[in-house]
Amino acid sequence: MRVGELSRRSGVPIPTIKYYLREGLLPPGAATAANQADYGDEHLRRLLLVRALIDVGGVSVAGARDVVAALGAHAGDPLELLGTAQSAIAPRHRPDRETPDWQAARKRVLALIVERGWLVHPDSPEIDLVADTLTTGGSLGVEELLANLDSYADSAASIAAVEVGTVLARPDPASQMELVVLGTVFGEALFSALRLLAHQHESARQLGVIEPPQENPRIPQ
Amino acid sequence: MRVGELSRRSGVPIPTIKYYLREGLLPPGAATAANQADYGDEHLRRLLLVRALIDVGGVSVAGARDVVAALGAHAGDPLELLGTAQSAIAPRHRPDRETPDWQAARKRVLALIVERGWLVHPDSPEIDLVADTLTTGGSLGVEELLANLDSYADSAASIAAVEVGTVLARPDPASQMELVVLGTVFGEALFSALRLLAHQHESARQLGVIEPPQENPRIPQ
Repeated sequence: MRVGELSRRSGVPIPTIKYYLREGLLPPGAATAANQADYGDEHLRRLLLVRALIDVGGVSVAGARDVVAALGAHAGDPLELLGTAQSAIAPRHRPDRETPDWQAARKRVLALIVERGWLVHPDSPEIDLVADTLTTGGSLGVEELLANLDSYADSAASIAAVEVGTVLARPDPASQMELVVLGTVFGEALFSALRLLAHQHESARQLGVIEPPQENPRIPQ
Repeated sequence: MRVGELSRRSGVPIPTIKYYLREGLLPPGAATAANQADYGDEHLRRLLLVRALIDVGGVSVAGARDVVAALGAHAGDPLELLGTAQSAIAPRHRPDRETPDWQAARKRVLALIVERGWLVHPDSPEIDLVADTLTTGGSLGVEELLANLDSYADSAASIAAVEVGTVLARPDPASQMELVVLGTVFGEALFSALRLLAHQHESARQLGVIEPPQENPRIPQ
């Protein structure tokens, strides 16, 4: 297809597509004339992936480039790819890892892993990531929330089981890896939005303030 | 306390504290001399809140200013405050809300609310936020993950119940609201990190590739 059709089918404006091509987020199309190129379905899919990372995941263009490069480099190694996707998506706050507080937090994560029998390599960077979060939470004075670590782990485990199952149901490794990246970004956005909705319900329930909606007159039938 | 002690106790460098003061993220201290001011515990708490928003939540300085302003304006209205915190934390992608796809997504969210008896006002902006996510997911080709909507809702509901209970256990509305903001940011970071860890476990379990760790030699006892 021509760039115009690629734009129509992806919903991404042509100048943005050209920008992604220049930035190496999208591989070049097959040249058909001096100033024309032909794009395939793989371009469409890559474009949707890049948009998901940037628009939904809030990833920078440089971060999206890293993920795209990792998709090429780690074909067949979904865990490695997921690590790259995650570090692009969530750079955020990284506390000092040499402190006793951080070491204690890491021990707590390892204890949780052993208790639950989670199949996680002890050198896994995700362990450090959870320890980072716990350390930051401690320094922010949200110890009460840290006390709910097991509840968070329960929810994370059930979501992860469903997500990994969905990814593995895809027929080939390439499309599985795509869903790993998209699913990490999208699943997080969906969960966050639902959690806010559920906060509203729980606040109302625990404080007893409003009635549930029976129907919504604004929605056309 | 003087600004030096505020810096030591919060871990925030003095130049950053001065920047926050200039930007209105932190209220001025009580002037004690021409070039000196005295800061109280409320400054320390506000500073930790601002750091949480910016470092952990990835909120911009302008977004943090909105949340801080909302903390003053909506004292006593946690839902309103949560809405402001959320819109500062997650600007991200907003699809066109006039499309039939978006209307269908919103109907799906309302159906989920009615099925579950969630106490949510039908005009609640969180409903639109979930519909945004579903619409984006649909356009990204992750329909398989959308099929797991109920699993996401289950997890979100159990986390929200724990979080709201923890917030309401705080003694006064001001500290409750602080925990709402901190908890939204922190809980999301913790859940994301645990979800990645659980992904690793589930991938290993469903593919059968690695052994669980028994102990970790790098951690001092």
